[in-house]
Amino acid sequence: MKALVYTANEEMTYRDEPEPQAAPGDALIAIESVGICGSDMHAYLGHDERRVPPLILGHEAVGTVLEGAVPGQRVVLNPLITCGVCDDCLGGRQNLCAERDLIGMYRAGAFAEKIVIPERNLIPVPDGMPSAHAALTEPGATGLHAIVLAESALARPISETRALVLGAGSVGLLTALLLRDKGVGEIAIAETNPLRRDLVREHCQLEIFDPREQAPAAQAYDCVFDAVGGAVTRDTSITAVRSGGVIVHIGLMDNQGSMDVRAMTLREITFIGTYTYTPVDLRATLAKLHSGALGDLAWIEQRPLSAGADAFAELLQGQCAAPKVVLATGS
Amino acid sequence: MKALVYTANEEMTYRDEPEPQAAPGDALIAIESVGICGSDMHAYLGHDERRVPPLILGHEAVGTVLEGAVPGQRVVLNPLITCGVCDDCLGGRQNLCAERDLIGMYRAGAFAEKIVIPERNLIPVPDGMPSAHAALTEPGATGLHAIVLAESALARPISETRALVLGAGSVGLLTALLLRDKGVGEIAIAETNPLRRDLVREHCQLEIFDPREQAPAAQAYDCVFDAVGGAVTRDTSITAVRSGGVIVHIGLMDNQGSMDVRAMTLREITFIGTYTYTPVDLRATLAKLHSGALGDLAWIEQRPLSAGADAFAELLQGQCAAPKVVLATGS
Repeated sequence: MKALVYTANEEMTYRDEPEPQAAPGDALIAIESVGICGSDMHAYLGHDERRVPPLILGHEAVGTVLEGAVPGQRVVLNPLITCGVCDDCLGGRQNLCAERDLIGMYRAGAFAEKIVIPERNLIPVPDGMPSAHAALTEPGATGLHAIVLAESALARPISETRALVLGAGSVGLLTALLLRDKGVGEIAIAETNPLRRDLVREHCQLEIFDPREQAPAAQAYDCVFDAVGGAVTRDTSITAVRSGGVIVHIGLMDNQGSMDVRAMTLREITFIGTYTYTPVDLRATLAKLHSGALGDLAWIEQRPLSAGADAFAELLQGQCAAPKVVLATGS
Repeated sequence: MKALVYTANEEMTYRDEPEPQAAPGDALIAIESVGICGSDMHAYLGHDERRVPPLILGHEAVGTVLEGAVPGQRVVLNPLITCGVCDDCLGGRQNLCAERDLIGMYRAGAFAEKIVIPERNLIPVPDGMPSAHAALTEPGATGLHAIVLAESALARPISETRALVLGAGSVGLLTALLLRDKGVGEIAIAETNPLRRDLVREHCQLEIFDPREQAPAAQAYDCVFDAVGGAVTRDTSITAVRSGGVIVHIGLMDNQGSMDVRAMTLREITFIGTYTYTPVDLRATLAKLHSGALGDLAWIEQRPLSAGADAFAELLQGQCAAPKVVLATGS
């Protein structure tokens, strides 16, 4: 089969790879669409020691079952493979499973024509749903999971709060769209890429600004979603959040800098690290995307998998306006 | 009246001070007992820019109403003076009030024979309760507030969790005693002062260890209460807490060091800054102390207010075993 392989730092190679072989309990999937995630970019830059080349990256995938329990069924893949039997798995917190693995990390990912994955990791796609839309399930569920954690920590229902989202990549933008769907009236997004700001304004009718030109209002937001996860955005989060408010830390851009823990303590701020999603988050997000509640999703940019190397290069240079580039096989 | 005045760095002076004058809405209180808090020590060392000498420190106070609505009533003082009309005050989160003040910070504290304080800051003491016990209300409520915040963030009831408490000063020890009263079966306390460890073992039958000799088990605790609040204890908290667990940051020892935010994110850790308590926390804690649920409290050390300067000096040198020194007037 053909696959887009991470072969070296800043090098993606579209080439022939061996056909994947399904083990008992696995399904064989023909990939239709797969999104490029920030963590794929991170790996591409050689910044993720967990992703060692040569490796097929990609985990935001939609396809059709070739071999398995439901041949012909279109499915979103839950890329997080967990043991299914520990307290965390059985308690509905599968994302915490100590045995967890992710496709495109220690095992082959979805930038390929085919993949094998456990049957229990398949989520049926509603009839007629475009595969590029369904490919947003994974980043959307990351946002939904962050929101669910915030809701458990907020003193008031999230619909009564003011929210700030840092970063309008797909996770940040989908977080903002999910917040709007939950009735949050005041949502501001900070994004430094001007191309992306224009695209979000045009397609999503959301308030978006450049935080380098205009700092977010101080102590003004009940909840801040940091979809970047850098020293600068952590500082911004602490400054912008209200006393008694909640910061949800989603991104993993860097591990630098210190945090003003004294201010966080005196102002009783809750800082929540959030990692991925649960199966329930994925299903709920897929349903939201299909319902139209998150808009027409016209901000997705689609490209052929065979041209994936160029997409990575352009993303690296900030030339992509789209919050999400989805690669499609067979085109 | 006589008062113990913070007059300069590492200098407390027992001397005559002007009689306090009650404004409308205030009560005049004759102080019986007042505890020495870590924040008083912090001020004494010149490390708290909010507390400027000359200043009467002290905010863990019990006394009797001399002038006010209920003359003769014994009362615990709620030292946190708030506006009473903002959303936070009316929403039961008085500790977040933007107008908040604390006795012994910007206004005169309770290391004195008398104090004035708003009537609404008085909490009646049950008949016959020793004033030294009632003086633990404030540090105990700080612990209870931290526990209540942890409970809102934990996935399971706190009685099913394993808890680690860092520091066995009064807040740490009272947090551990409150956790035991809530049915938490596994509670470990880390404390570096050997005198204090011996006293806690003798009086409280709690597991207590020296974290410099024996590091806490890694990723073993559902909740960690950091009653120290230093760079070292923050690192320990992140190492010791389970994935999906909760760190409650109570202490304000320093604002140094960085935190491993990457680990906090990948392991979905919630970090909660907690500041003081609400009136409800204070009343609930006073009732717990009076009921005997927190033990016989024989670990309190009582000294005369007139000898307070020596107590501060001994506390500074680590010569005090007692988690709480309470100063009594009139002796």
